[in-house]
Amino acid sequence: MINRLTSEERATQLAELHGWQSVAGRDAIARTFRFADFNEAFGFMTRIAIKAQEMNHHPEWFNVYSRVEITLSTHEADGLTARDIALARFIDSIAPGPLSV
Amino acid sequence: MINRLTSEERATQLAELHGWQSVAGRDAIARTFRFADFNEAFGFMTRIAIKAQEMNHHPEWFNVYSRVEITLSTHEADGLTARDIALARFIDSIAPGPLSV
Repeated sequence: MINRLTSEERATQLAELHGWQSVAGRDAIARTFRFADFNEAFGFMTRIAIKAQEMNHHPEWFNVYSRVEITLSTHEADGLTARDIALARFIDSIAPGPLSV
Repeated sequence: MINRLTSEERATQLAELHGWQSVAGRDAIARTFRFADFNEAFGFMTRIAIKAQEMNHHPEWFNVYSRVEITLSTHEADGLTARDIALARFIDSIAPGPLSV
């Protein structure tokens, strides 16, 4: 069993992530990524898929061509947990843009 | 340039596919697939990604754990074309379930 983050934990940990937003109507966070093309977008997704499998914690995601929209929440806790923060940190660490330059 | 399918072409070709439904409010088709787990779902997506890149025609898709929802439409034609039918045929050919048993 894993517990949802408290309001305080949530605020502190979200502040350390990059560009993740709360999702309206549910206890989840989301971020959209843009790439040069599908090859880059799906390569990014594949790196996340391998990590997610290793963590046994998976994203909800949508992709169309070069755009990837990722939502994180923990099904069994019905909300945001430390697992989502850990996966978001990994995603941030491989994301394109200023952070990875 | 590629043209949208006529109503007649659309009806004939959709009838040859398996389980694809018209999408409300836009000229597109969609089908949902369910797998045993994330590994199977993402493996399926990866096969489609490689084919899509080869065809230079890409899906819109959503995945959460073992579920994959795919929408096909041709952006440059603003609707359903022969490219979508070709990609749907490939997807059907590798889809799990009675068809592939």
